[in-house]
Amino acid sequence: MRLRLTPRDTSFFDLLAASAAHLVTGANLLAELLGAERPARKAIAKQLVEVEHLADDATHTIMRRLNQTFVTPFDRDDIYGLASALDDCMDFMEEAADLIVLYKLEELPARVSDQVQVLQRAAELTADAMPRLRSMEDLADYWVEVNRLENQADKTHRKLLAQLFDEITDPILLMKLKEVVEKLEDAADAFEKVANTVETIALKES
Amino acid sequence: MRLRLTPRDTSFFDLLAASAAHLVTGANLLAELLGAERPARKAIAKQLVEVEHLADDATHTIMRRLNQTFVTPFDRDDIYGLASALDDCMDFMEEAADLIVLYKLEELPARVSDQVQVLQRAAELTADAMPRLRSMEDLADYWVEVNRLENQADKTHRKLLAQLFDEITDPILLMKLKEVVEKLEDAADAFEKVANTVETIALKES
Amino acid sequence: MRLRLTPRDTSFFDLLAASAAHLVTGANLLAELLGAERPARKAIAKQLVEVEHLADDATHTIMRRLNQTFVTPFDRDDIYGLASALDDCMDFMEEAADLIVLYKLEELPARVSDQVQVLQRAAELTADAMPRLRSMEDLADYWVEVNRLENQADKTHRKLLAQLFDEITDPILLMKLKEVVEKLEDAADAFEKVANTVETIALKES
Repeated sequence: MRLRLTPRDTSFFDLLAASAAHLVTGANLLAELLGAERPARKAIAKQLVEVEHLADDATHTIMRRLNQTFVTPFDRDDIYGLASALDDCMDFMEEAADLIVLYKLEELPARVSDQVQVLQRAAELTADAMPRLRSMEDLADYWVEVNRLENQADKTHRKLLAQLFDEITDPILLMKLKEVVEKLEDAADAFEKVANTVETIALKES
Repeated sequence: MRLRLTPRDTSFFDLLAASAAHLVTGANLLAELLGAERPARKAIAKQLVEVEHLADDATHTIMRRLNQTFVTPFDRDDIYGLASALDDCMDFMEEAADLIVLYKLEELPARVSDQVQVLQRAAELTADAMPRLRSMEDLADYWVEVNRLENQADKTHRKLLAQLFDEITDPILLMKLKEVVEKLEDAADAFEKVANTVETIALKES
Repeated sequence: MRLRLTPRDTSFFDLLAASAAHLVTGANLLAELLGAERPARKAIAKQLVEVEHLADDATHTIMRRLNQTFVTPFDRDDIYGLASALDDCMDFMEEAADLIVLYKLEELPARVSDQVQVLQRAAELTADAMPRLRSMEDLADYWVEVNRLENQADKTHRKLLAQLFDEITDPILLMKLKEVVEKLEDAADAFEKVANTVETIALKES
């Protein structure tokens, strides 16, 4: 139980939901990029940069409003943490896409697609959950499932790392692939951080 | 001087002490793994994963209680920071152990054992210090010593890095060893972060 | 609008300004090191370590005072964030210099000098801005310009990465250069973090 003044500024919910919606677009573009031939990838990566800019604007709007609002719907620090973590999800996905193009990577191991599928699923769950912050209802399923997905992503990541070191003999190619794979793992961690922050908020409100 | 309502919820002390106790077990398993032959390492790494799960549960218990407790024995953010930093210590040690097995590393340079010895000592000091948070007495020796250990770890780390680049000519082996060595350095940094958070708490209470 | 007790402890402004002044010295030493012949670099790197120690002392003084002061000129967490981010700027610059010496790097690509020039400019802007925190006037130009510089640094970084992977065929040399280039990018990010924290403070005060 915590004391609170009314009215809450409800627009934070809309802003967070908008920010999370960009993640779905971003994750889908990343999947599209993986499936595309090398020449087509540059254009997709460029689209992802544009989505990343939109997400960036959304984050800045949240931060600005946060700093100018006296009463927030829940802890100021938690909204800040949520917006930052959503921003991180997008940044890591964009960086992964950029590196795939920059490093002129050809075919990527099948497990990289598994990593990206987890990100697509995590993005959908996150975008679905954000509007429910308003009522604080039915959120537990979301964070439990994202934590499960992150565990799965972590296992895929470690297997993929072992596979790369077993199969790739060109050290420079290995460096490139390892960096892409790590950015995707960072993205999965960032989605988990979003879910953990939502859990924190829900526990404080309960 | 800060205002406070009574009674404090004292169980946080026990939870933090339990979390730190896992670090001693973890650091000792890491040392054991280093000294073992390759075939025996997998089983030790598995034990370390189990200890890491216990530590994870301890962290979650602290976080959950933190979010549901109105009055905490000291700043909510500091308890949160302490629990997170303790969790990081374990995560980095577990990751280092996992990589040693995953990368099928044979003999490791002697300075890697020096790194792990520092972690063992830091874990012991941390586990000894946590129960003293209750009385806030005799904590300065702890954080001074852990800071000294981290400085020593940092010097070892830089020497080790120079040594690896001087001696190892196989770039893939170099990548593997560098990553292990960096996880161990990250663990030493995490122990310093725990100590710095304890210092922060002590200064606020004084 | 936020309630505040008087008098504010104004010495935080002087401490933050002193901390930022060290960054100008540090960035200039880094530029000097880049321009020097290899035998002369060790001595310059040593000077940078000394400046880093001074910056470290400044940070600790801020943190200690922060923990012992009841009324701070602006949000405690923001002062903490500012001091930490200033500290990170110095740490990353010192680490980059250290690695250049440790890895016995000869000539570095011209774009590395571009990276360091951005850091020098960011350090000057930061040192100029810190004293203006007292009046909270004319700060917007500072954070806008540092954000612009960071964008420029990010573009340089990505081009440099592409160039390294295109031109360097020795994987071990590539690992060394990549790490130096990343530390410099981390430093640029840390300067942006300082600017973002200043923006946060200014928005809260407005």
